[in-house]
Amino acid sequence: MRILGIDPGTGICGFGVIEVERGKPTKLVTAGVITTPPKTPLEDRLLDIWTSLNEVIAETKPEEASIEKLFFVQNITNGISVAEARGVATLAAKISKLKIYEYTPLQIKQSLTGYGRAEKKQVQEMVRQHLGLSSMPKPDDAADALAAAITHALMRRD
Amino acid sequence: MRILGIDPGTGICGFGVIEVERGKPTKLVTAGVITTPPKTPLEDRLLDIWTSLNEVIAETKPEEASIEKLFFVQNITNGISVAEARGVATLAAKISKLKIYEYTPLQIKQSLTGYGRAEKKQVQEMVRQHLGLSSMPKPDDAADALAAAITHALMRRD
Repeated sequence: MRILGIDPGTGICGFGVIEVERGKPTKLVTAGVITTPPKTPLEDRLLDIWTSLNEVIAETKPEEASIEKLFFVQNITNGISVAEARGVATLAAKISKLKIYEYTPLQIKQSLTGYGRAEKKQVQEMVRQHLGLSSMPKPDDAADALAAAITHALMRRD
Repeated sequence: MRILGIDPGTGICGFGVIEVERGKPTKLVTAGVITTPPKTPLEDRLLDIWTSLNEVIAETKPEEASIEKLFFVQNITNGISVAEARGVATLAAKISKLKIYEYTPLQIKQSLTGYGRAEKKQVQEMVRQHLGLSSMPKPDDAADALAAAITHALMRRD
């Protein structure tokens, strides 16, 4: 069973697909980021995210999606565009009939490191260990998307 | 030339299509709202908005879209889901190759009433007059979507 993790963003949207099978180690299928240049009109960015995520889904055929939930504390303007991208990412998963789950950054940190205030590097190190990788997945947003996917793998009951 | 106005929202998303032709009065083509029941999962709401807007676009064939810009001051949680719906609405317009324009609530009030702090009722009355309607378009969110469309009609240079 494959899980698609998504770390939503307008400038950079991270994605990661993992394969989980009972009694076997979790495997990395693919991970990466969709980037759109600054000053690109919003609608072009959303279309890029939409097209790229549809391709990832078509190629890797995940059954479930784990999408990071948003909290806007620092920058409302940025938060609005992240939420717009998140809406498009959620729709892409829904249209392809994935079951959708949402986790807060706190839940993701907690489930991977046991500590809700863990640093980004600790989370990434746990992603690396969990997937048996020799080095940290890069860039950060791809690692965050994998962290969301792994969280769902740990939380789901099958 | 037809313009699609959108007042984004998750529970209620308003839409309105107008027809503008140089030297002729602006005409109402259609207006309404897409509503989704409370407690519906986000992804189902986004899919409803997506499907319904695609239908409106296919039936009325607008060439340009005018989408209200968001400001979150009062309720951040609600603001996140409105932005998610706005992302999906923008994508629907983009996929159908509409040219997309954005206006703030201030710009919409200003262009319709000449006063950026106009009350909702004043804006709606101007929508009614501008489209030559005998009564106010209902519900409010449909009127707001028409207000966005009319604003773009007034602002565009053709």
